[in-house]
Amino acid sequence: MNLPESIQNTVDEFSKIPGVGQKTAFRQILSLLNWNDSQRNMLSQAISGLNNVESCRTCGMYTDEEICHICTNPHRAEAKTICVVENISDLMAIERSGGYMGYYYVLGGVLNPLAGIGPKELKIDALIERVNTTNAASIILAINPSVEGDATCSYIKSLINEEVEVERIGFGVPIGGHLEYLDPMTISKALENRRMFE
Amino acid sequence: MNLPESIQNTVDEFSKIPGVGQKTAFRQILSLLNWNDSQRNMLSQAISGLNNVESCRTCGMYTDEEICHICTNPHRAEAKTICVVENISDLMAIERSGGYMGYYYVLGGVLNPLAGIGPKELKIDALIERVNTTNAASIILAINPSVEGDATCSYIKSLINEEVEVERIGFGVPIGGHLEYLDPMTISKALENRRMFE
Repeated sequence: MNLPESIQNTVDEFSKIPGVGQKTAFRQILSLLNWNDSQRNMLSQAISGLNNVESCRTCGMYTDEEICHICTNPHRAEAKTICVVENISDLMAIERSGGYMGYYYVLGGVLNPLAGIGPKELKIDALIERVNTTNAASIILAINPSVEGDATCSYIKSLINEEVEVERIGFGVPIGGHLEYLDPMTISKALENRRMFE
Repeated sequence: MNLPESIQNTVDEFSKIPGVGQKTAFRQILSLLNWNDSQRNMLSQAISGLNNVESCRTCGMYTDEEICHICTNPHRAEAKTICVVENISDLMAIERSGGYMGYYYVLGGVLNPLAGIGPKELKIDALIERVNTTNAASIILAINPSVEGDATCSYIKSLINEEVEVERIGFGVPIGGHLEYLDPMTISKALENRRMFE
C-alpha cells in the first residue's frame, strides 16, 4: 500500500540495517510514531552521534577519544601482554568473557593475498613497533583458526623479537559441546591439546 | 563491558524500540558503525522526519499533508462507503487485503467507560457529521469482536440516519484455520454466519 513519504522513507532506511526486513522496519516505525518528537530526536541524534566514533590510535578499538578506555586504563593486571585479534567483535567477545586483563591490538582481518590483504593492510608494522617500544613481555594471538589465520600467526611470530613470548589461544571442545557432533578437525585439536588431569 | 559513550547511548535509544533488546541493538549498531557518515545521517534524518507525520483531518490516517492520500483519491470505486476501524494498523491491514475500495474513519479505540473512553474521546460526533454531510450511502463497521467493540457498534448504529446502510464485517473460520483448533465462540459465529453454498 501507499504510505506517506516520511514513513516510507524511514522504512527504507531502517530496512538497510542487517537483519531488519521491510516488515520488521514497518512494525518498529509504527511504534516510533507513538513516541513524542523529543524521544524520536534522541534516537535520531544518537545515530548521528555515531559519527564521532573513531578507532583507538593504539589498539584499533572503537572510542570517542583518541585513545580508548582499555588502552588508557593503567590498572589492567597483565600490563605487559598484548592480545592480537582479527576484529573489534572478537575483542569485545574476549572482554565479555572477563578472562583477560591485558591490552589489545586489532588487525582488522587476516593475511589473504588472493583478496589483496597483505601485511600493510593489517598494519602489522605498527604492531611490531608497539611490541618493541612498549617492552611487551608476551603476545597472545587470539586469531580464529583458518588457513589464513594460521598463516597470519606464523607471519607475526617470524617478525617478533625472540625475547617476547608468543602464544596462541587454545583450540578444542567448546564448553557444552558434544564429541558426537563436533567436526574431526576440532577433535584432533582437542586430542593434541590434552593436558595432565589433576 | 564499558562501551564508548556514543555507542552506549545509541544502544540505549535503540533498545527502547519494542522488540529490540540490548543484544539486538548492540549487534545492529556494530553494523551501523560500518556505514559512512552520510548513510547514518540519512537514517537519523528519516527518524526525525517522522515528526512531520500528522493525522488526516478527515479519516485519522497518518499523512504528510492535511488530508491523506486515501481521502484525496477521487478514483476509489466505493465512493459512498465509509469503513470505521479501531486504529491505523487495522486500516492498513484492510488496505493490504485489497478487498475494499471506499474511504475510512479511524476511531482510535472502542468505547470503554471503565478506562474513561467515551464517545467524545473517539470523536464519534465527527463521524456522524461526516456521514450526514457527505451523503454516505453505507457504513462498514470493521471493529474487532469484543464486548467493547460490540457496544461501540451498537452505539454508532443508534446515531446513524436510518437511510444509511450499516454493516459489520463477517466473523467466522479464518482461511487456513482448522475447526479443531478454533475457540467455541468463533465456531458459533461461523455457524450463525453460514451461507447458501452455490
